[in-house]
Amino acid sequence: MKTVSGRWRLGSIGGTLLWSALLAVGAYAQTDPLPSWNQGPAKQAILDFVRDTTDPSSPRFVSSAERIATFDQDGTLWVEHPMYSQVKYCLDRVPAVVAAKPELKNVEPFKTVLSGDREATTSLSMKDLETILVATLTGMTTDQFQSEVEKWLATAKDPRWNRPYTELTYQPMQELLKYLRSHGYKTYIVTGGGQDFVRVYAERIYGIPPEQVVGTMGGTKYGYDENGKPILTKDAKLLLNDNNAGKPEGIQLMIGRRPNAAFGNSTGDQQMLEYTKAGDGARLAMLVLHDDATREYAYGPALGLPDTKVGTFTQALFNQAEKDGWLVISMKNDWNHIFAFEK
Amino acid sequence: MKTVSGRWRLGSIGGTLLWSALLAVGAYAQTDPLPSWNQGPAKQAILDFVRDTTDPSSPRFVSSAERIATFDQDGTLWVEHPMYSQVKYCLDRVPAVVAAKPELKNVEPFKTVLSGDREATTSLSMKDLETILVATLTGMTTDQFQSEVEKWLATAKDPRWNRPYTELTYQPMQELLKYLRSHGYKTYIVTGGGQDFVRVYAERIYGIPPEQVVGTMGGTKYGYDENGKPILTKDAKLLLNDNNAGKPEGIQLMIGRRPNAAFGNSTGDQQMLEYTKAGDGARLAMLVLHDDATREYAYGPALGLPDTKVGTFTQALFNQAEKDGWLVISMKNDWNHIFAFEK
Repeated sequence: MKTVSGRWRLGSIGGTLLWSALLAVGAYAQTDPLPSWNQGPAKQAILDFVRDTTDPSSPRFVSSAERIATFDQDGTLWVEHPMYSQVKYCLDRVPAVVAAKPELKNVEPFKTVLSGDREATTSLSMKDLETILVATLTGMTTDQFQSEVEKWLATAKDPRWNRPYTELTYQPMQELLKYLRSHGYKTYIVTGGGQDFVRVYAERIYGIPPEQVVGTMGGTKYGYDENGKPILTKDAKLLLNDNNAGKPEGIQLMIGRRPNAAFGNSTGDQQMLEYTKAGDGARLAMLVLHDDATREYAYGPALGLPDTKVGTFTQALFNQAEKDGWLVISMKNDWNHIFAFEK
Repeated sequence: MKTVSGRWRLGSIGGTLLWSALLAVGAYAQTDPLPSWNQGPAKQAILDFVRDTTDPSSPRFVSSAERIATFDQDGTLWVEHPMYSQVKYCLDRVPAVVAAKPELKNVEPFKTVLSGDREATTSLSMKDLETILVATLTGMTTDQFQSEVEKWLATAKDPRWNRPYTELTYQPMQELLKYLRSHGYKTYIVTGGGQDFVRVYAERIYGIPPEQVVGTMGGTKYGYDENGKPILTKDAKLLLNDNNAGKPEGIQLMIGRRPNAAFGNSTGDQQMLEYTKAGDGARLAMLVLHDDATREYAYGPALGLPDTKVGTFTQALFNQAEKDGWLVISMKNDWNHIFAFEK
């Protein structure tokens, strides 16, 4: 921030200092770690938090070994509307599942998905959806699953932007991940999505290695293939539903310490943010509000935005954020870019 | 190794080079990363493995982001005889549990433990032991548990050495952990012991942070204390028994990729070593054999060593090690020091 005010001061002195001013702008552009964030309370809170927790002379200093930042994924790091990408993956896998088990062809909910009737598919019950998730996410080895997801990611495209899902990550959050890591923070994804699914691409698209992806966890079963080679087969046993109260539980299981900073965008992140903020010292909790229908989507229903089942941000959550000192990030006002491909 | 042969060559030239030879010895003492290991196939295998996987020109090179080494704890990193330290902790906690719930005083197995009859206590059935583990490891908040374990660690002593349990770590393995980390390896504990128990001291005594401790996992339940502050309470739900087949399953859950190197000492580590060795490229699998009754303990029953229920190393495991190219570390022959306090 010093550089910014310095720049305006230089500019105000007059034309003779034009070159100095331009150089200062250049230096600022190079050194601003969060160029896609507009100046404002959200950006300032991040800069203050990092300064306070990494300056050894600060009373709020955190040793580098203890610096943990956790990020929800869907709606926080990438687009979640109109449908979670993983759900789209599972629906897209149904033909392959039915090809391998033709007896499912005329059985619901597979029949509806195969019919191609989009409206009927999006109206499937939670129970039907679970049947599809189990059929498409379990029963194969971990290696087979990884290669199936990779193949899908390479070809599937979001219909609105006509781009691979992995390009629909938010540029400001990518900058934030890098900025935190460059200051010694370990960045974790803590998602309600499937842990193994997100791990397939998290390292490539977010720089987050598999061991730092915490998600909804299914079990695996150790065994041997026909050549006696060890394999792990994904089974349908649910170990942890990493959403709501499951998020702090998943953090305890996978990380074993309380985050210093946590970022989310919906009611599923409430407990993670509470748990983070309840720690001593400097704690940062932030919520992304989708209030930009032009550049992305607008949904809530906080602040009168349209209601949704995908990434609900209720007025009660908004009120809790105000009361507990969580910052709300307005996509519309706080982000000057949303996607890298806009530039 | 080059330094070692260099030293002998220097020494063989004659007395005029005495000083050079001494200086070379000094340099060697400073640079040998594994001074508590005797020269031999075990030490050589470690040095070769690290050289091959960290030299970018080697066909067996592994990028630093992917370098994972996993270590069993009991009997591999520290003493496990005559009883796992965590079991001792649980037995020592029984009086406090009964003080809080006096109705347990005359109920088995608490009654036997309270009687102080050591023989009767060590003869408790597996089911009785489980009752004690559940009573002493669950029901409290994660913060309370951590503080109880810390208090015990500060006072409890192993009867043979009359030292805190945390001093009974093997110096050669401590050197190995540091050596691997200094070459970009992430070191993990993968233990049948309780994940939360080991996390209390792993960072302090092994340099391994909580997020790199994989152990037997119980669930937690998110809730609020009487002041509305978020808490996590340890519950009795077993998520994963991190032993035998549970070790590769736990590695998949917590790390999400196959280790490059794995170290164990008993049949409980067999699947972890198989899984590690089944990967492509350079893979190191090693087993510590307790064959030194004078300096530590001798048990097997591989190679005719006395049989044991704690850390069983069967002849079948020994044969599998030979067949599959796992190296057996002889405590007696491969380690010139066992404990740091010997020096």
